[in-house]
Amino acid sequence: MPDARSAPSPAPARPGTPAPREDLAGMHPYGAPQLDVPHMLNVNENPFPPSPALAAAMGEAVREAASCLNRYPDREFEALRADLGAYLAEESGIPAPAASQVWVANGSNEVMHQLLLAFGGPNRTALGFAPHYSMYPEYARDTFTRWVAADRGPAPEFALGTEQVLSAIAEHSPDVVVLTSPNNPTGTALDLEIVRAAAKALAPRRGLLVVDEAYGEFRRDGVPSALTLLPEHANLVVSRTMSKAFALAGARVGYLVADPAIVDAIRIVRLPYHLSAVTQAVARTAIAHRAELLSQVAVLRAERDALAEHLRGRGHQVAPSDANFILFHVGEDRHRIWQALLDRGVLIREVGPEGWLRVSLGTPEDNTAFRTALQEADPR
Amino acid sequence: MPDARSAPSPAPARPGTPAPREDLAGMHPYGAPQLDVPHMLNVNENPFPPSPALAAAMGEAVREAASCLNRYPDREFEALRADLGAYLAEESGIPAPAASQVWVANGSNEVMHQLLLAFGGPNRTALGFAPHYSMYPEYARDTFTRWVAADRGPAPEFALGTEQVLSAIAEHSPDVVVLTSPNNPTGTALDLEIVRAAAKALAPRRGLLVVDEAYGEFRRDGVPSALTLLPEHANLVVSRTMSKAFALAGARVGYLVADPAIVDAIRIVRLPYHLSAVTQAVARTAIAHRAELLSQVAVLRAERDALAEHLRGRGHQVAPSDANFILFHVGEDRHRIWQALLDRGVLIREVGPEGWLRVSLGTPEDNTAFRTALQEADPR
Repeated sequence: MPDARSAPSPAPARPGTPAPREDLAGMHPYGAPQLDVPHMLNVNENPFPPSPALAAAMGEAVREAASCLNRYPDREFEALRADLGAYLAEESGIPAPAASQVWVANGSNEVMHQLLLAFGGPNRTALGFAPHYSMYPEYARDTFTRWVAADRGPAPEFALGTEQVLSAIAEHSPDVVVLTSPNNPTGTALDLEIVRAAAKALAPRRGLLVVDEAYGEFRRDGVPSALTLLPEHANLVVSRTMSKAFALAGARVGYLVADPAIVDAIRIVRLPYHLSAVTQAVARTAIAHRAELLSQVAVLRAERDALAEHLRGRGHQVAPSDANFILFHVGEDRHRIWQALLDRGVLIREVGPEGWLRVSLGTPEDNTAFRTALQEADPR
Repeated sequence: MPDARSAPSPAPARPGTPAPREDLAGMHPYGAPQLDVPHMLNVNENPFPPSPALAAAMGEAVREAASCLNRYPDREFEALRADLGAYLAEESGIPAPAASQVWVANGSNEVMHQLLLAFGGPNRTALGFAPHYSMYPEYARDTFTRWVAADRGPAPEFALGTEQVLSAIAEHSPDVVVLTSPNNPTGTALDLEIVRAAAKALAPRRGLLVVDEAYGEFRRDGVPSALTLLPEHANLVVSRTMSKAFALAGARVGYLVADPAIVDAIRIVRLPYHLSAVTQAVARTAIAHRAELLSQVAVLRAERDALAEHLRGRGHQVAPSDANFILFHVGEDRHRIWQALLDRGVLIREVGPEGWLRVSLGTPEDNTAFRTALQEADPR
């Protein structure tokens, strides 16, 4: 999958410079460009900053936590796990998961790394469906897990069906399957029948099913969460993040819900004290202020539906989106259009299949700026 | 190495529970007990909490950072890297390392994990010298690196000599060598001649030398830091932490200094945005208040030397310590003595060779309590 990279040219190596792993040769660090432009719609951030009141509450929580920062943090962050369980009960209408079913790490990145470290590894295979989030193969690489990607259905739906998933499982015999709902970069949500079927197909071989719901809170009315299936399946993990709906990308808080046996396996491979006392304090404050944060989710969902309609009205193919971003088709010209948008102060992402671009939903002002810039870059 | 573990008994697995990696079977999570007792002298924490003024400054820094927490953090944390470079110049009398030579992660744990992920891996070997920090083999396990440990010299010095190190390198042909100065759990500092010799021996095979100076700031006057050798050796990494001297264990900030080519290799395997904006803000505030924090290091060094003298006066063998802890010999009775101290509200660590115990330096009050409790537990 093409992706924007920001690799500084490596300095020429001095004599005796040590040799990294052979399989890293020629690789570059992951990186969407971090440019300072007026409208940053490229990495699916939530455009609404915490309010001054919430920022003050976070500062106060950290001031309090600071009084024992000389001590290691609570290695098991039980209070945060309980808070997240209570939030999920509210959000998805499920019985509150116990703290023993919840796990938190420094972003979904670390959650996924820990999952593949415990359940992947050398001679094990993880299966996903492309186009998928560009980090999945990196999680696999960094845990020496083999990554295989089957294909999602054709544009513009990029749908996934039960047969597709079951046949890919039969073909690749994966130890871990990663499904994403809604999927990044396509925005597609998943039918729960697929999740059920995949979990059942994996159970006899003791395989793990991960449903990545990083964008779960943005799903449309009536679209269920895989959280509701947890009681049925001992091999199901649902991962979430506070980066998006909670507008907390800068604080790095990802989490998962699963059977306690899965959480216990992660506890073996996690670095001790991986979650700082400061992170715990900030995350708990955000959860306590969830009414403010989640009201903005409703705004973003409405903006998304309106923008999708607008793009369709301009004649673009648009992938149906349950997320806070939209993948839309522009054709062969995509790099020129991406650059023309950037020239107008609107940074979106050149990602996904050839001919498609992804735009994150911003504030209403951001989205208006995007519409205007797109009309100039690609008059229709 | 015997170590105190706090593994909750795993819940009985439900049918279909997925299977973790076979080599994790029967393993328990790392964990020193987190007990709430009056005198916590078991995990080498700095006993001095941040002052109210510093706690307020940290809260204020986080309040400011919170206003853009909806955005991903600065992936390269250039400002923090520059601050750490300036601090090290001051602390060790070296020219300030450039930001490109400094790398920061969530605790030394993650720094070491990233180093072994980039420079270790399957079919590669990392070499250390026992008794060593109990996490080293776990970093190796989690990166599929083979861990081998040669022996340090005999008690009570637990010294390391150039010949020992060179012959272990010749024997094991390691890709990575981890030396620790001062060493945990013995407290032993390293002669720089050993560092020079090891770096030179590893250079022709492009091996990496890591000198773990987690406790570096506690070294006695006249004991140099391996930081001074960085200009000479392109394969030398010096790792440090803010957990100890900066009294910031709860904030999880570890870092390293090395040739930019080493930092660039780590950037390939690091999880993007691994260091939160909140962590960056807290760390920078602590560095700005370093005068307060480092003045307490002087207190702890004086306490350490006095306690070592006291223990020797009681007839214990004592390992010479350049750290904020002391390893001392009690003989066959060590578990009983450890428990008797705990019964008196003093938690130390049952770690290191049979017959030895490790006590962290606390406040003068903590250390007095320890002396009193030890006299009761082991009258001499």
